[in-house]
Amino acid sequence: MAAGTQLTNPFEDPLRYERRVPEATVVIFGANGDLTRRKLMPALYRLALERRLSAGFAVLGISRTPMTDEQFREKMRQSVERFLENSPFDAQVWDGFAKGLFYLPGDVHDPAAYQRLSQRLEAIEQARNMAGNVLFYLSTQPSQYATVAQGLSQAGLANGRGWRRLVVEKPFGHDGASARELDRSLHAVFAEPEIYRIDHYLGKETVQNILAFRFGNGIFEPLWNRRYVNHVQITAAESIGVEGRGAFYQETGALRDMIQNHLLQVLATVGMEPSATYDAQAVRDERAKLLRCIRILKPEEVEQDAVAGQYGPARIGGTEVPGFRQEPGVDPASRTDTYAAATFFIENWRWAGVPFYIRTGKRLPKRVTEIAIRFQPAPHVPFEGQAPEAPPDLLVLRIQPDEGISLKFASKQPGPGMRLRPVSMDFNYGTSFGERTPSAYETLLLDAIQGDATLYTRQDMVEASWRVVQPILEVWENRKFDFPNYPAGAWGPEAADRMLARRGHEWRRP
Amino acid sequence: MAAGTQLTNPFEDPLRYERRVPEATVVIFGANGDLTRRKLMPALYRLALERRLSAGFAVLGISRTPMTDEQFREKMRQSVERFLENSPFDAQVWDGFAKGLFYLPGDVHDPAAYQRLSQRLEAIEQARNMAGNVLFYLSTQPSQYATVAQGLSQAGLANGRGWRRLVVEKPFGHDGASARELDRSLHAVFAEPEIYRIDHYLGKETVQNILAFRFGNGIFEPLWNRRYVNHVQITAAESIGVEGRGAFYQETGALRDMIQNHLLQVLATVGMEPSATYDAQAVRDERAKLLRCIRILKPEEVEQDAVAGQYGPARIGGTEVPGFRQEPGVDPASRTDTYAAATFFIENWRWAGVPFYIRTGKRLPKRVTEIAIRFQPAPHVPFEGQAPEAPPDLLVLRIQPDEGISLKFASKQPGPGMRLRPVSMDFNYGTSFGERTPSAYETLLLDAIQGDATLYTRQDMVEASWRVVQPILEVWENRKFDFPNYPAGAWGPEAADRMLARRGHEWRRP
Repeated sequence: MAAGTQLTNPFEDPLRYERRVPEATVVIFGANGDLTRRKLMPALYRLALERRLSAGFAVLGISRTPMTDEQFREKMRQSVERFLENSPFDAQVWDGFAKGLFYLPGDVHDPAAYQRLSQRLEAIEQARNMAGNVLFYLSTQPSQYATVAQGLSQAGLANGRGWRRLVVEKPFGHDGASARELDRSLHAVFAEPEIYRIDHYLGKETVQNILAFRFGNGIFEPLWNRRYVNHVQITAAESIGVEGRGAFYQETGALRDMIQNHLLQVLATVGMEPSATYDAQAVRDERAKLLRCIRILKPEEVEQDAVAGQYGPARIGGTEVPGFRQEPGVDPASRTDTYAAATFFIENWRWAGVPFYIRTGKRLPKRVTEIAIRFQPAPHVPFEGQAPEAPPDLLVLRIQPDEGISLKFASKQPGPGMRLRPVSMDFNYGTSFGERTPSAYETLLLDAIQGDATLYTRQDMVEASWRVVQPILEVWENRKFDFPNYPAGAWGPEAADRMLARRGHEWRRP
Repeated sequence: MAAGTQLTNPFEDPLRYERRVPEATVVIFGANGDLTRRKLMPALYRLALERRLSAGFAVLGISRTPMTDEQFREKMRQSVERFLENSPFDAQVWDGFAKGLFYLPGDVHDPAAYQRLSQRLEAIEQARNMAGNVLFYLSTQPSQYATVAQGLSQAGLANGRGWRRLVVEKPFGHDGASARELDRSLHAVFAEPEIYRIDHYLGKETVQNILAFRFGNGIFEPLWNRRYVNHVQITAAESIGVEGRGAFYQETGALRDMIQNHLLQVLATVGMEPSATYDAQAVRDERAKLLRCIRILKPEEVEQDAVAGQYGPARIGGTEVPGFRQEPGVDPASRTDTYAAATFFIENWRWAGVPFYIRTGKRLPKRVTEIAIRFQPAPHVPFEGQAPEAPPDLLVLRIQPDEGISLKFASKQPGPGMRLRPVSMDFNYGTSFGERTPSAYETLLLDAIQGDATLYTRQDMVEASWRVVQPILEVWENRKFDFPNYPAGAWGPEAADRMLARRGHEWRRP
C-alpha cells in the first residue's frame, strides 16, 4: 500500500493486531524439558495475562515423566514464577490459565501414546467446546522429530476437524544432507505451510525492528547499499561458557549453533530487498532470495574467510575459568569451535563487493548481539587541519542487551577552526517505549496460533543457509586446529582480526 | 583533499588552529556602547584567557564620552565580569589584558578626532612594539559608517605599515538601494577583501556545524536534496518583546532585522552546494550562489507567500504584557512587523520544488532557533494495520538554546504485529563536548584578526539577500495591515498557518 493512501483510508482497522487468537490446543512434546519451563510456559502465561488467548485455549504437555494434570500445573506454576521476565505473577490469571493445562505421560517411540493423545485431545476439545485446531510443538531431541511426525500420522492426528500445525526447534539437521532428510520425513506427514521452524532471533523485537527501520522510513533505505555502506559486522557474543552443556555443544559448535540459523537470518534481514507486503510469503521470499545470493566459499577460500576458535583457560577477575576442553563432558582433545567468524559477500546489485563479517563465540568479554554498519567516508572533506580524521559514520543496531540504535557521525569540535570529532545520537528502546517488550517466544507462539509464518524459517531458507556453511564445515572437519587459540575473556583468536585486516577493516569493540 | 589522503599525510599540522593571531590593534568606534560592553569586550577577554592573543595586542576604544584609559579599563572590567558567560573571571589575566586597553574621546564627525586617533595609534604601536596591523570595528549607528570610513581615509589611517581591516555590524542598509550606497562609500576607502561584514549567526558553533554535519559525513549529503527532502522550516523565535528598543525596532521590523541577514544566511548554509575547500572564497561563493538561486517573489505572490504580524497585548501567566503599539517609543498606529514569515524556493537542481519556510518573531511562546528538515515519506510501506501512520522522518538542527541535533524516525512499537511509532535519536552539544563553546563574537573576532573572512558576509551576499526581501518590503509598505494580528505569547498570526496549509504543511511546535 502506498504510504500516501494510508493517511486517508477510513477502513484501516487499528485493532487488527489486538484481536484474540483462534481457539486451539497446543500440544507440547518434551513438556518436562528446559525450553517448556523457561520459555514456552512463561510466554503462554504472558499471552493469557494480556488476554490474547481464546476462552477454550488449552495446553497438553507430553513427556515420559509420570505426572498428573495437577502435578504438571504445579510444576509449570513454579517455572512461570521463576522465569517470568518484566511481569508480575498474577495468581488469579494463573488459576484461569492453569485450568486449560493438561498432561499426558508417554514415550514418543510408543505408538499407543499417540492413541492416548488422540483420545485425550478429543476429550479436552469436547470439554472446552473447541474447534479442533492443534499446534504440535516439538520441544524434544531433534532426532525424535521424524518419529513424532510419523506417530502423529499413524494415529490420524495429522488431520482433523480444525487446522494442524507443527512447530520444530533448531537444529534443523546437522548438515545439508541431514536437513534435507529431516524435511523429507516431516513432509511425509505435514505440508510445508503447516511446518513452523522456529528461529527465536526472528521473533526478537529488535530484529523485527530492522524491517521497520528500513522500510518504515524514507531516509535509511537510500543509504542501504554498496554505494554508501563500506562493510557490515554482525556480532553475537556470549560471556558465559557452555554451562554444563559441554557434551551437547561438543557435537554442534558455534558455526552450526549460531551462524547457520540465527546470524544468517539476521544477515538476511539486514540485507534483503524491501518486500512489497508484510506477510509470510513476501517477506520469506525476500529473505530466502538474499540467502541464495550469498557467495559460497570455495574450499581454498575457507582458510582466509572463515575462522574457528576454541577458548582456553584463563584467570578472569580473580577467578580461574576452565578452557572448553576442561569443561565436564568435553573431550580433552575436542576440535569443536566455540568461536566462529566468517566473511560473506552478497552477490547482487545492492551489495556486490560489501563484506558482511559475522562472528560469534562463547567466553568473550561481554554478552552483546549487534549489527554495525560502517558507511563510506565522505568522498571529499573540505576542512583542513582536522587531524586525526573522524572515522566514517557508523550505525549500530543493538539486538541485545541495551536494545537500541546509535548513529556515530562527525561533528564540529567547538572552538576555532573546523575540526571534526565523532559524536553519537542514540535511541534507546527501554526509555522510548514504556510498555513491556514481548519475548520472542510470546510473539512467535502467537503468530503460529494465528497462522502467521512471517517470522518462521522456511525450508528453502534452511537449505540456503546450509549451502553457505557447508563448505566451511567440510574444510574444518579435515583441518588441524591449534586449539585452544583464545583465552576465555578475549575477543576470539587473532586470525579473526587478520581476516578483517586483509580488507583494511577492524572488528568493533562493542 | 580526499578523505583517504588525510589519514596518512605526515605533513598535517594539528596545531594549525591553535596558533596565536598576528599582532594587531583593534580600534572600536562606539566603545561606550552596548555591543562593546556585552559582546566585544567579553569575547576579547576570553581570547586573552585562552592565550590566543599576541603579546602586543591592544584595543583602542573611541566614543564621545570623556574618559581616561583607567576609567575605560575599569568600566570594561565591570562589563566583562557581568557579561562573561561560562567562564570564570580571572583577575590576573584581566590585569595583563587591561594593560593593552586604551581610550580616546572623540566625535566621529570631527576630523581632528582622526588625527588624534592616528597619533594615539602610533604611540601605542611604538610602546608595544607592534607591526602596525589595525582592525577598525564600527560599533556605531550605521548612519555613521560612511563618515568614519571617510574620516579614516582623510587622516591617512586607511593605509599603514601593516594591514587594515574594517568590521561593520548590520544593518547593511535599510533596503537594496541604501545597501548599495553604503557599499559605495566603504569601497571608496577600503577594498572589498578588507571589509568584514559581521553576521554573528554565522559565527555560532551550531551554524558552523551545519557544514561539518553535511560535508564531514558520508551519509547526510546523499539525502540532502529534493528527492528526499519534503520541505524545510527555519524558525527564530524570541519570547521577549522589544525590551525598550521600540523606537529603533519600529524602523526595522522582523523581516529586515532577522530574515534579510541571519535567517537567509542560515538558509544559504543549509542549502548551499558543497564547497571544494573551506576558505573565504569557496564557502562564500557557494553561499552567494545559493542566495542568488532564491526565486524572487512577484508582487502578486507576496500576499500568499509572505506573512507580516504584530503582537497585541495579552495576559501571560498572570502578567499583563503590552502589545507592540503600547511599548514605549512606538507609534500607537505602528505598521511594523514584529513577526515575519515567508516561503522561498531555491531554483536549482538540488532544491527545485522544495519549500523553505522561514519565520521569526517577538513575543512568541519560547525562545528557540532551529532548522527542521522534513523528509519524504517512505515511498511504500509494507506494513498494514499501523494507524495512525508515523509522520515522515524529521531532522532538527537546534541552533539555540539546547544546542543539538535530533532525528525523529519510525520504529516498531513493541508488541504483536507491526505498528510504527515515531521515536527520536538525539545528539546534545552540551553533554557531548565537555569544553566551553566559544561565543560567536569570539570566533568572528579571532577570524577577522587572522584575516579569515569565511564566516563574514560578502557584498554580493548582502545584495542577493536584499533582492529577496525587497519585493516583500515594497508590498508591505503599501498594504493595509490588520495589526495587531497575534496576541503576545502565541505562535504568530493565523495567516502564517494558512501559508503552509496551502502546500499541505504545518509549522512545527518546537
